[in-house]
Amino acid sequence: MKNTFGSSVAVTIFGESHGEAVGVVIDGLAPGLTVNDEFIRSQLDKRRPAGAISTSRREADKYSIVSGVYNGLTTGTPICILIPNENKHSGDYDELRRTPRPSHADWTAECKYHGYQDYRGGGHFSGRITAALVAAGSIAIDALRTKNILIGTHIARLANIQDRTFCDYNEDIVQLNNMNFAVLDETAAAKMHTAAEKAAADGDSVGGVLETAVLGVPSGVGEPWFDTMESALSHILFSVPAVKGVEFGGGFDMCSRRGSEVNDSFCIDGDKIATKTNFSGGINGGITNGMPIIFRCAVKPTPSIYKEQDSVDILTKECKKLTINGRHDPAIIHRARVVIDSVTALAICDMLSLRFGTDWIKE
Amino acid sequence: MKNTFGSSVAVTIFGESHGEAVGVVIDGLAPGLTVNDEFIRSQLDKRRPAGAISTSRREADKYSIVSGVYNGLTTGTPICILIPNENKHSGDYDELRRTPRPSHADWTAECKYHGYQDYRGGGHFSGRITAALVAAGSIAIDALRTKNILIGTHIARLANIQDRTFCDYNEDIVQLNNMNFAVLDETAAAKMHTAAEKAAADGDSVGGVLETAVLGVPSGVGEPWFDTMESALSHILFSVPAVKGVEFGGGFDMCSRRGSEVNDSFCIDGDKIATKTNFSGGINGGITNGMPIIFRCAVKPTPSIYKEQDSVDILTKECKKLTINGRHDPAIIHRARVVIDSVTALAICDMLSLRFGTDWIKE
Amino acid sequence: MKNTFGSSVAVTIFGESHGEAVGVVIDGLAPGLTVNDEFIRSQLDKRRPAGAISTSRREADKYSIVSGVYNGLTTGTPICILIPNENKHSGDYDELRRTPRPSHADWTAECKYHGYQDYRGGGHFSGRITAALVAAGSIAIDALRTKNILIGTHIARLANIQDRTFCDYNEDIVQLNNMNFAVLDETAAAKMHTAAEKAAADGDSVGGVLETAVLGVPSGVGEPWFDTMESALSHILFSVPAVKGVEFGGGFDMCSRRGSEVNDSFCIDGDKIATKTNFSGGINGGITNGMPIIFRCAVKPTPSIYKEQDSVDILTKECKKLTINGRHDPAIIHRARVVIDSVTALAICDMLSLRFGTDWIKE
Amino acid sequence: MKNTFGSSVAVTIFGESHGEAVGVVIDGLAPGLTVNDEFIRSQLDKRRPAGAISTSRREADKYSIVSGVYNGLTTGTPICILIPNENKHSGDYDELRRTPRPSHADWTAECKYHGYQDYRGGGHFSGRITAALVAAGSIAIDALRTKNILIGTHIARLANIQDRTFCDYNEDIVQLNNMNFAVLDETAAAKMHTAAEKAAADGDSVGGVLETAVLGVPSGVGEPWFDTMESALSHILFSVPAVKGVEFGGGFDMCSRRGSEVNDSFCIDGDKIATKTNFSGGINGGITNGMPIIFRCAVKPTPSIYKEQDSVDILTKECKKLTINGRHDPAIIHRARVVIDSVTALAICDMLSLRFGTDWIKE
Repeated sequence: MKNTFGSSVAVTIFGESHGEAVGVVIDGLAPGLTVNDEFIRSQLDKRRPAGAISTSRREADKYSIVSGVYNGLTTGTPICILIPNENKHSGDYDELRRTPRPSHADWTAECKYHGYQDYRGGGHFSGRITAALVAAGSIAIDALRTKNILIGTHIARLANIQDRTFCDYNEDIVQLNNMNFAVLDETAAAKMHTAAEKAAADGDSVGGVLETAVLGVPSGVGEPWFDTMESALSHILFSVPAVKGVEFGGGFDMCSRRGSEVNDSFCIDGDKIATKTNFSGGINGGITNGMPIIFRCAVKPTPSIYKEQDSVDILTKECKKLTINGRHDPAIIHRARVVIDSVTALAICDMLSLRFGTDWIKE
Repeated sequence: MKNTFGSSVAVTIFGESHGEAVGVVIDGLAPGLTVNDEFIRSQLDKRRPAGAISTSRREADKYSIVSGVYNGLTTGTPICILIPNENKHSGDYDELRRTPRPSHADWTAECKYHGYQDYRGGGHFSGRITAALVAAGSIAIDALRTKNILIGTHIARLANIQDRTFCDYNEDIVQLNNMNFAVLDETAAAKMHTAAEKAAADGDSVGGVLETAVLGVPSGVGEPWFDTMESALSHILFSVPAVKGVEFGGGFDMCSRRGSEVNDSFCIDGDKIATKTNFSGGINGGITNGMPIIFRCAVKPTPSIYKEQDSVDILTKECKKLTINGRHDPAIIHRARVVIDSVTALAICDMLSLRFGTDWIKE
Repeated sequence: MKNTFGSSVAVTIFGESHGEAVGVVIDGLAPGLTVNDEFIRSQLDKRRPAGAISTSRREADKYSIVSGVYNGLTTGTPICILIPNENKHSGDYDELRRTPRPSHADWTAECKYHGYQDYRGGGHFSGRITAALVAAGSIAIDALRTKNILIGTHIARLANIQDRTFCDYNEDIVQLNNMNFAVLDETAAAKMHTAAEKAAADGDSVGGVLETAVLGVPSGVGEPWFDTMESALSHILFSVPAVKGVEFGGGFDMCSRRGSEVNDSFCIDGDKIATKTNFSGGINGGITNGMPIIFRCAVKPTPSIYKEQDSVDILTKECKKLTINGRHDPAIIHRARVVIDSVTALAICDMLSLRFGTDWIKE
Repeated sequence: MKNTFGSSVAVTIFGESHGEAVGVVIDGLAPGLTVNDEFIRSQLDKRRPAGAISTSRREADKYSIVSGVYNGLTTGTPICILIPNENKHSGDYDELRRTPRPSHADWTAECKYHGYQDYRGGGHFSGRITAALVAAGSIAIDALRTKNILIGTHIARLANIQDRTFCDYNEDIVQLNNMNFAVLDETAAAKMHTAAEKAAADGDSVGGVLETAVLGVPSGVGEPWFDTMESALSHILFSVPAVKGVEFGGGFDMCSRRGSEVNDSFCIDGDKIATKTNFSGGINGGITNGMPIIFRCAVKPTPSIYKEQDSVDILTKECKKLTINGRHDPAIIHRARVVIDSVTALAICDMLSLRFGTDWIKE
């Protein structure tokens, strides 16, 4: 299905960095959901570059809702959201056409589209497309909230600076969702900024790890094979640019431990069956168990750096030095955070809708 | 699509551990592919338990091809493969019905299927179902080989014992595919066995990490958003039981490094554009770049351990001690290896078929 | 998705006429549904050839349920049903390999599968595969019945003999479901038999029209574009061999009339909004309106006739006379009836499951 | 997938009659295809109302291509096309909110969307949405033409006036594609206009039958079960508003004839295997045979008529007389023609792309 994700709630994405607009169609959301413009606006603002460690390309990200919303409520029919491109410097990219940037999609786009791709500013591969995902995701996040399903993501690591992990999920998520630079331990924030600025000063970039918690997803959602909850989430998470790893619960670390250390013993919590630990990340056998869904995404260092790099001329097939101009972020992880929240919300909406029907949110 | 994966080459899985049989339908493989019974047999043998660190449930895994193969060649129509269940000890599982095993799918199956699931031996969640995946995957692996696409997986870590990483991909893969316990550094094998046996002696279990290389996939395969190559692979990898993490190329480790350290500089290799390093794991912007596809799967410690654990009675909602009887593996990672190869081959066949058409393999 | 239909309730079909078995996997039926062996048996019997106007190939159609049913109830996991092939006369088909039968799939199979298809008895194209659909459909029909959703199909026309149309839907459907040769006007049955026998005596065959009513489908099911209820039904109906036309409600005839004659005026029926007429066939704008869903399928005359026909040798590309031996039906419409009921039930289950969730039938 | 059709070439539709715009996203078209603005414009003009037998709502149907086209060529990434709504008279529709129009989607929209639908002008159900389909289809039609695949549709019947059928396919299609009112026998056109005008004078409407020929589709495309060529086409055809029947080749009429009369004998045409007749409509066993694909769509009389009709008040559940104001077409079949061409082209592109890969058109 290419640029579409989901079957009961489906998202289709389109647009190029320097074209008319980027946009998204979300199909399958229940009718009657409130579309909160202020919230969409605030989510887009979290994605927008700001401060010293972001690109100097700054756009208002004005969006318009073209369809699917009437009197401020979803109609149940497809919602199309457009975000026009405003601040385009196409001149910056001309050299890149023949000289692909290392670890970017320039070369693979050439392989797939044979030179017909709109290469300006990364075209359809640009992180800018994620603005459309954030707009769509905002509606999904808001909708989930009406069923007490909450999503929060923090920068668990930037470069080699660690944040603390979740402690009180509800409080932590509320805190995170009010922050532009989302960390649980605010003393980590300053160190992270310093690390990113230092990299920027060197013409370099940093990556990190995002950790996400999803609260309130009922048990029994997901399929035993192929369409496991982990499969659905990782499918959409790996389409967020720069994500190169996804792990649930105890993840890679738990693999050097023993079963007795990482098995989640059951207990009774009020009248509910729960587990004492959550190394399973809320999912067993592909199906939610009612505990928080926990996962981490590895976000690679931004590949656009100012340092000189080795590239090639794709026509003459000769080696060539490359120095990237244009405007680039030394770190994108703090901006990627809200993208992760957004795609998570979209995938969870799809899975819940498949399980409980298209009107599940109203019942 | 639940228990089905893929759109151009689609795999559907069925069966329960203690039912008549487990099985699989593969639809969309090109007509005229050789079905090599000896190879299927040898792949199934690699998955079968053997030695001290595997369950004592031993079955011949006799399979029968019900459809889609005529005169030893694929017909192009759906191939159904059945693997009858022979060695069933249903009595072992009766207690588990009301007392779910920690970190197993017992409880989530109850949540999803409301008690109607066939709970014997894990039912549809049993690792036994992977035998069907291996049979199907064998045909796919063999088919890919005719186009010089090679897949190899090794136990990169078991408990805390590390194997060396890939060095000469071609040689390494040939070596791995001839081994039952797939490691690149054979001295690691003995240590891994010791670690697993020690855990077994303690009534405990171990996990680890599998690393996979796929050679020969042409560049330009995958989609920029949602159906990225990483998305397709992780989708099917996360449906392999016990996989709790997937990372490509430099993965999580690369996230604490700088862009200049992990960007893959371009170079010219003969008449081809290649990269000097492969932190991207062969994929940029969701699309293959022609370099080896590299990923690692976190395999959690087998949850079935003999140590006493805390569970609950799901009816009375009281705490209850649980001691698991039956036959269980202290380690499954060495058996999971061939499952990872199999699902990888199935996903790659699907992606290639979508890109190049249903007869791509013949051209 | 090729040999798979449906997304929430998905059906995958496999098998060849002269292979080991034909079969089907149904995935997504709710757990806890009764699997009524007697009913499956009786449905398969309705599809089996019988009497003078059917092929002399007669098989018991013994089926076995390989997975997904435990203690006589669905588990919620994929149900695989196998129907072994018993009475095979492969010798009959050898000549057909190079000399395709007119209006059969022999030639198109060659085009698609390049000679690798199992050509014996039509292979994967054989009407015999529909036995698997009937077995799967029986479970769906039974399940729908628990929600008072009833399906009935009659032979509205055979050759040029007309049956009367539906009068009292409930009574008519009960009557039809007890008949092997399903007509509403029993005097038509004799005439139809005569017409078919006459054709048989001439070495020829007849076709006809099947008309189906589905009662009890709630309003609000279906999508406005692409996945309309008509689209979903026609998609699966056109995969039943010999179906060359599908029309809903007033269908083709209504197109020469005026809007005022065929618009369905609204009325109040008890406390429900209904329509006085049903030219819409229960569907407006792709969505069910709560009235009976009515459609008709054109079933072409069986292409296997004994009369000499013009064919070609596909290798030498010379004209060639063809006389078909083997065992063939002069009419299949009376047997196709139960196939139509079956695929209708499967499509309706899928649409209801998408709308109301995977457990809709239990609520 | 709701408002999306296709898997290799996918179309997603959005918009409401009186919202900002209607639009479409087409994903999966090969890169490098010419986007011919003049042709898109001319196709949109064929759909636009004109003359006495069309609604007086007239809009320029200005479209803008938001993404996926660069330097006049497709980039290979999703193409979004927007058509703003200009000439809106929302006041006309207020009464209809509580008083559904017979045989319209007003009532089923209410059932599905619980009153949240944008009911103005039919909202998402409006025929206006088909303008977006026509824009998307134009690119597909043009692309197919580069491979000598031609599509032509004529009004085979309007009310009870018949057009002649296809004679010389190539000539006929060229003629049709230059006409706004597409008939093969131009003397029929005048009679059809008279019939429609007479109905209009009576405050009534007419329907008819469209017949389509597709030339040049290679043999071997389509699947034996479920994704047959007939299934794919009927799926999308039945989402065109007012289509209530679809038949291929000999269709319903052939069902009262004998096999010997309607079997398509083979012959040799040059160096190709062909058939003497084409009752199969170019498809056997769900797979194309290389002959022209022929089908007919039943288009019901436009349900919006000026005559007083019986409706109900959906709140009070009382009977109510309804007189529709606003601007409506007494016939839409002549405008639907280009919609049928468009969706046919989109479905054929999807099927060819699945069969031959995403770049098939370049090879």
